[in-house]
Parts: sequence; structure tokens; C-alpha cells
Amino acid sequence: MGIEFTVYKGSPEGKIVKSTTHKDDLSPNEVLVKVTHSGLCGTDAHHKHRDIVLGHEGVGIVQEIGKDVKGFQVGDRAGWGYEHDSCGRCEQCFSGQEIYCRERHIYALSDLDQGSFATHAVWKESFLFQIPEKLDSADAAPLMCGGATVFNTLHSYGVEASHRVGVVGVGGLGHLAIQFASKMGCEVVVFSGTNSKEEEARQLGAREFVAIKGVKKLSIKPVNHLLVTTSAQPDWTLYLSVMAPGGTIFPLGVSDGNLSIPYMPIISRGLRIQGVLVAARNVHNKMLQFAAFHGIKPIIQTFPLNVEGIEEAMHKLEKGQLRYRAVLIAQD
Amino acid sequence: MGIEFTVYKGSPEGKIVKSTTHKDDLSPNEVLVKVTHSGLCGTDAHHKHRDIVLGHEGVGIVQEIGKDVKGFQVGDRAGWGYEHDSCGRCEQCFSGQEIYCRERHIYALSDLDQGSFATHAVWKESFLFQIPEKLDSADAAPLMCGGATVFNTLHSYGVEASHRVGVVGVGGLGHLAIQFASKMGCEVVVFSGTNSKEEEARQLGAREFVAIKGVKKLSIKPVNHLLVTTSAQPDWTLYLSVMAPGGTIFPLGVSDGNLSIPYMPIISRGLRIQGVLVAARNVHNKMLQFAAFHGIKPIIQTFPLNVEGIEEAMHKLEKGQLRYRAVLIAQD
Repeated sequence: MGIEFTVYKGSPEGKIVKSTTHKDDLSPNEVLVKVTHSGLCGTDAHHKHRDIVLGHEGVGIVQEIGKDVKGFQVGDRAGWGYEHDSCGRCEQCFSGQEIYCRERHIYALSDLDQGSFATHAVWKESFLFQIPEKLDSADAAPLMCGGATVFNTLHSYGVEASHRVGVVGVGGLGHLAIQFASKMGCEVVVFSGTNSKEEEARQLGAREFVAIKGVKKLSIKPVNHLLVTTSAQPDWTLYLSVMAPGGTIFPLGVSDGNLSIPYMPIISRGLRIQGVLVAARNVHNKMLQFAAFHGIKPIIQTFPLNVEGIEEAMHKLEKGQLRYRAVLIAQD
Repeated sequence: MGIEFTVYKGSPEGKIVKSTTHKDDLSPNEVLVKVTHSGLCGTDAHHKHRDIVLGHEGVGIVQEIGKDVKGFQVGDRAGWGYEHDSCGRCEQCFSGQEIYCRERHIYALSDLDQGSFATHAVWKESFLFQIPEKLDSADAAPLMCGGATVFNTLHSYGVEASHRVGVVGVGGLGHLAIQFASKMGCEVVVFSGTNSKEEEARQLGAREFVAIKGVKKLSIKPVNHLLVTTSAQPDWTLYLSVMAPGGTIFPLGVSDGNLSIPYMPIISRGLRIQGVLVAARNVHNKMLQFAAFHGIKPIIQTFPLNVEGIEEAMHKLEKGQLRYRAVLIAQD
């Protein structure tokens, strides 16, 4: 018998292609989810030339469960991010860092025959998350990667409530980072090109707003941490000048080439550059609870979950026109 | 009245110049130390063109104490590093991070009228360290900056005894890093150009030794941390390939220009690049105790503490001929 469903893939020309994936009947620990919502992430645009199923910010309704599944019932809402599987027996898995599992790295994308750009997906129960009642599915979707990434940054790397946190860029990641950091008690300082997003940033929780276009020197109280959410690397010299000793720079965007940053300020002020990859499951789960508790939600634009909708959303993403995160909605 | 003593300074031409420094009579909390030994550090060579007193790895004998000094008596051995003073009232001072004191940054060198290239020096009691009985003064001197830097790296940034620690370069810092990491229980992996230093590295505590000259690809078990002790930046692509997920790279050398390192491996493996600056006093003190307890000592070459001795030692340092750290010895 087995299960068949529609999926949307990238292609060498960068067009979105509709296709069909076939799965065996559910294993005892697997869950069949009907996709209702999917976020669109910069990484999807990054991979649109590859023959893989796209989408990794999924939310849907549980339609069928394997016989050993305990945490989900048919009809439950379930969400998932980039973490699809892990070996469960390597050092990383032992330490709650299954996102770095040695045997099945999440960025080994070549065999991805399912994702959240689809009508359905089959996942192991242990890689699905319950969606808290207070979170709408459309709002939950962008949290599955974008929200997980900024929450993990703020949660797992020494950011304290009393710290000043800089956020560079008000976009898909930045507008979530402002909210999470603010609700964690931090003084949030937003850096953006112009003042056009100042009011919105302040409503999201920014305490200070700095328009940096044309600025050669920043004279503000130093920040302890800096979340760089822009896709292009910023003027590091400018930002190094506002880093407090012992502070951390988190480059969160996806970028080819080299990270190239003045050397001596890193040493002489004991700064740290910290790479962050989405979130381990225990952190992901805390993120969902925290967002629900504090009413954190993305500002979204919706599109139909079909070839045309995906392509339009991607086009807006690539043009920098999204305010601030695209959500694709199933049409049936 | 006051105090007068001989000091050795840099000069625009890079020659070492003998000079005299005059200090007022001791303040209540100050100590007059007669210098017996001074280490020579790469930073001294870096600053030899400046009109400042050089030397920041000092060991000597207390000759006179201010009336409120409690921790030292005349005749005690005392050592000091780069930390000379701090305001005691800023956030960094409050948190035991006085090396980053906002009011008097240790790298604000322009007013340095004393140092360890001298016959004497006057310091606040609170910036001097007792030298443990088991440590020879000649061995203690290079620990004051070189030892403090590598110990702080291994002590303060999440290195665990069960970790694999890579050390790039067997030199002034590297040969100390091998010893400290090994005595902390870590598996030490040494990377060096050729095999010429292999036997010595193994005697110091290295478990594995990798000669990297001409090597395009490393196939060893990943390391959790990498201490880069070479003055030039290494082939980052080569070393990134052996970093375990969540690992840390510590660039310890002094280098102008940019740190330029492939971007995506930092993100996708959640790596950290951590700048380290010598050690706060509480860490410095632990370093001295640890070195004395475990019999850690530098491998040194000695030179007379005078113009000729300093210049000869600096020449060898710059040529890469020191095995492994120069110590200048007072001649009277």
C-alpha cells in the first residue's frame, strides 16, 4: 500500500516543481501529518536550484500515527523544523545536541524527499513538536526555523537578562530577535539602514534604534551581544566599536565566502564570534512555550501553498520586500 | 626624595635604549620590587619601535613596602604581568574582569614609564603575585603573560578534561599550552610544520602529533578546541575540517589585519571563535598554583638583562630561533 502525497521541489533552473513522494506504511514510531502551514526561510531560496523537497518550517494536523506513538493523537497540531532525524548513539545525540548528529547531519540535504512545501509529511514522533494552544498555526510556522534560531542564540550562549543586546537588521530573523530578547528582559538596540522601521521596531520591544546609513562612528553605550541577521555581512569595524569587553557576535545570516573581521579587537577585548544552528529539540520546545506565554508572534504575509504561491513568496523574499516572514497556506 | 631606577625602552629605530625612571616615594599600597628575571614576549617585539618601557613578564624581590601593604614582606618574591592597574569601580572590575577595565585599559601603553625590562619597578600590591615556592624565578617569568594566556584559555572558556585539545604551533605559547592542557586531563593533539619537534611535544604531554607541511586534508578524530599559537594565521580550511560540532577556535597570536575564515562551517557546526587576553588576577593566581603543583615549566633560553641581552633575545625571537621562551636575568 504505502502513502503518496504532493511535494514541491527546487530544480536546476530555480523553478518550483510539483512532484509526488511515495512512503512506506508508517513505522511504529512515525506520524503522518497533513501540512496546513509552512514558513518560507532564506535557506529555501538558497536551495531552490537543487532537486530536493523544500520547506522546513512546517505546521499541520496529525492524520495517522504508528502503533508505538505516545505523544500525538490524530487531530493534534504538530510542527517541525530542520531536524528530521538523528542516530541517537553519537556524542552529539547523547548531549542533547542532535542537530549536530554525526551520522545524519541535517544539512545533508541530498536525500530530502519530503519537507513542509507539501501536502503531507511522515516524521518520527520524536522530531515533531506539539503546538501550544495559544499559538496560531500560521504564527507558529516561522518559529520552526527562524524563531528557533534566534531563541537558541539568546538562550544557549550566555545572554543574560541584564545585558544589552544589539540586533542588526529588521527582517525575518531580526523582528523575532527583538521580541524574544525584549521579553527575556534585555535592553534591545536595533541597527537598521534608515529610520523607516523605527516605530515598528520600538513596538516589538526595541529600546534604542540606530539608523546606520552613512554613519562612520557609533557613539552609544556598548552592547554585550550582537545578533547580525542581515544576509550580507555588515561593516564589522563599525560594530566592533560598540562591543563591550567579553561580548559576543552572532552572525546568523547564511553567506558564502569568508567571514572577514578585524583581528586585534577580537583579542584585545576578549570577544567571541559564535555560530548558531537552529535549536536542539529541548531548546526548540522551550522556544514554543516561551513564545506562547509572552504572545510573541511573527509579522507575516500569507501566500497559497502551491507552485505560484511559493514562487511569489520567494520573489518577494529575494527582493527584500517581505514584512517580515512569508507563510504558505494549504489550499484545501 | 623619590626612587630612581634603570629601565629599557623601545625607540623609533627599534633599538633598545637604556633610560632612567623617577617615581615618588611609595604610596601606602605600593611595593618596590627589584627585578631579577623578565620573560620576553612577542608583544615586546611588536612594541620595540615605541618610546615606552618594555617587558611584562616580571619576577623579582620585594625591596620596600608601603605602610598599608599586607600581602608582601621585604624579601618576598613577587611577579607581575600586563595588568598594572584598574579603576576598581567599573562593571569589568566588579566582575573580576579588571583586565578589561574601562578607565585604564592595559593596552593603553603610551604612558608606560616602567616594566620588567628594568632594574626595579613600583606596583600596587594588588597587581603583584606571590611566586609559589616550588617555582624557580626564571621559570615563573614566562608564565606571567605566556602562561597566563594559555591557562586562561583552557580554564575560562568551557574546555573540559574529557575534551580533545588541538595546539597549532610548538613555540613560546604552544609548548606551555601542551603542558597545561595535558595536566588538565585533555587529549592533546599538536599540529606543527614538520616532525622536528615531535619528540619534545610528546614529552611535554602531546598524545598525537601531526606534521602539516604539504598536507591538504587531515583525517584525525575531531578536536573540541583549537589553540592557534602561531604568529601567522594558519590555513583555516584545513583546521575547520577537524573541528567537532560546538568546538572553539582560540586565535592566540598577535596579528594585524583581518581574521578571515570560511563562514558557513562556523554556522553549520555551531563553532565559536574566542578572543583571549592574558588572565584576570584570580585566574592568574590559579595558574601559578597549578603550574607549581604539576611541575609545569617553560623551556627557556637565558640572556643578560641589559641592552645587548634584550636585543639578542629579540633577534632570536623574531627569527623563530628561540627554544622556546627567552628569560632575561639581572646582572647584579
